[in-house]
Amino acid sequence: MRIAVIGVGLIGGSVALAARERLGATVSGYDPSADALASALERGALDRACAELGEAVADAEAVFVAAPVGVLAETVGAVLASAPADCVVSDVGSTKRAVVAAHSDPRFVGGHPLAGAENAGVANARADLFEGATWYLTPASSTSGVLYERLYRLLHGLGARPAAIEPELHDTILATVSHLPHVLANVLVSQAAQTLASGDERMPATGPSFRDATRVAGAPSAIWTDIYLSNRDALAVGLDDTIERLAAVRDALAAGDADRITTWNETAARDRRRLLEAQLAGGPLYELRVSVPNRPGVIAQLSLELGRAGVNITDMALYPAADMSEGVVALWIAGEEPARRADELVASLGFPVARA
Amino acid sequence: MRIAVIGVGLIGGSVALAARERLGATVSGYDPSADALASALERGALDRACAELGEAVADAEAVFVAAPVGVLAETVGAVLASAPADCVVSDVGSTKRAVVAAHSDPRFVGGHPLAGAENAGVANARADLFEGATWYLTPASSTSGVLYERLYRLLHGLGARPAAIEPELHDTILATVSHLPHVLANVLVSQAAQTLASGDERMPATGPSFRDATRVAGAPSAIWTDIYLSNRDALAVGLDDTIERLAAVRDALAAGDADRITTWNETAARDRRRLLEAQLAGGPLYELRVSVPNRPGVIAQLSLELGRAGVNITDMALYPAADMSEGVVALWIAGEEPARRADELVASLGFPVARA
Repeated sequence: MRIAVIGVGLIGGSVALAARERLGATVSGYDPSADALASALERGALDRACAELGEAVADAEAVFVAAPVGVLAETVGAVLASAPADCVVSDVGSTKRAVVAAHSDPRFVGGHPLAGAENAGVANARADLFEGATWYLTPASSTSGVLYERLYRLLHGLGARPAAIEPELHDTILATVSHLPHVLANVLVSQAAQTLASGDERMPATGPSFRDATRVAGAPSAIWTDIYLSNRDALAVGLDDTIERLAAVRDALAAGDADRITTWNETAARDRRRLLEAQLAGGPLYELRVSVPNRPGVIAQLSLELGRAGVNITDMALYPAADMSEGVVALWIAGEEPARRADELVASLGFPVARA
Repeated sequence: MRIAVIGVGLIGGSVALAARERLGATVSGYDPSADALASALERGALDRACAELGEAVADAEAVFVAAPVGVLAETVGAVLASAPADCVVSDVGSTKRAVVAAHSDPRFVGGHPLAGAENAGVANARADLFEGATWYLTPASSTSGVLYERLYRLLHGLGARPAAIEPELHDTILATVSHLPHVLANVLVSQAAQTLASGDERMPATGPSFRDATRVAGAPSAIWTDIYLSNRDALAVGLDDTIERLAAVRDALAAGDADRITTWNETAARDRRRLLEAQLAGGPLYELRVSVPNRPGVIAQLSLELGRAGVNITDMALYPAADMSEGVVALWIAGEEPARRADELVASLGFPVARA
């Protein structure tokens, strides 16, 4: 398989490494920084370092755009202009509404892996960065089902767990589970630096809860200013909610209300358990075979409906009929109960479905 | 060495394990829960499980009280009433003002290790829990220097880095570096649970920044309600500061002000580096030998003054003269520059000091 990676930092470099090491793919790379490109080649992430974006994508079967969010839509546009007609193009940007709204090309599928590392750059790239990581995809009604399936299986091969989601819901969720924790980490370190410096020259040690809570503080501005701004409406809603919740805690403390504090803490414990259980949901794999007409948007619709219902598609394969008029999509779903729900849901959408 | 541990949960159990495994100490334990006591014995944390607190401390040379903050002062009082005259008594409570104000016995030194684990209970106790961890001590003018030194060396033997601090500053710092991160973790999980559940049955995955930021969410209420309440004034001040900082971020986002966001993020990055550098501060060890009169409070004064100046005492040893009228305290300090500052500071306090 021939893959192109545009932008060879931590994420792009890890995609390239994983594609070469795990899938035996041939990987071309382009980066506006000649230094980054040279490092990626030296690191063994690329088969070929290209001086031009067009050269990198010219014969690719799949392209990953790992550019900063601020130039993402424009870079995806440049890739679509140069990539072959049967090439799937995706990105790894942390916000999805803007880039998806900008491109309705059937070859484009927005994407976002929930993976990262403490330090940026290809030097910190790893072939196992996506192992077990959720990789959100935002297929649209314009998206080609064949190319979506290719991308899905490719991500599965990189070790990730692809999951379809609407761009709007993606950005709302990410505001809460990523952008907001980054803001809080920033606020915490600055607050602590001020408190700790106040005792003359003192700068004493902090504990494990602080280190965990601030691991992502001061993430690279070149990446994060764009992320914050591109999702600023959703993040502002999240911040208002946080402020309201913090004020409620302060009020309970001021009142010395042990019952209220305990109830609040128990709710958090229960919410944490629910989130952990959701992560661990699984079970034996069931295969559903769905007959679908070969028209744009069918695979996207199926994926999004199942995602919305909380059904996680572990893997997917598309078997088109010889005349391309229709096909069968095989969906592998973990767990008896999710598989049953998927079965019902797919049937209710009017597609013939059978357990394999 | 004979050690008693009152309360054999995660922290008490880890003290017991570390004392047995690392120092070859004989450890007696007491816990109001017979189950916890039996588990600790089974886990190999105790040589002897005692049905009564008085029995556990009767012949101890050092006692650690690892009781919930809400019953801490009372439990320390019970220990002081039963412990021998030359036994040092300390605690591991997360807030220090209340317990220190309650006890001016020369045998008592408040303490607090900055260590913890995701799960409570002796089942999760580990002999290496304190390896490299800051262990705050709050010696008072009433504290016996000989007993303080015994405790200091004992903690050093458990792998910890003891550091003297005033109870007030301890509680302010802990509000920022521990209690506030716990509150934020609680708020984040509950906010995420609400957002993630909003898409019908959806409960998708979260990413690494979220997992780190919420590791301590919903910590056991039996411990944490007391901690929050016992430090509620300092925590409320911290929460107001957090709310103000979050509102400023929200305003910068609303204004779409990229420069302000970048400046804010860069400040956080700089503050994080400063905090990390402070943790890593070190260098070759220098030994200072300080001559001190044998009167109460001298060791506490020295420790607190050096702590306030940001000098970390790596280890300490006290050599009393035969007639106990005076003695020499050896202080080991990491780094040329901190050693020089310590030298000057000790001299300015009027104590003869020499580099060994």
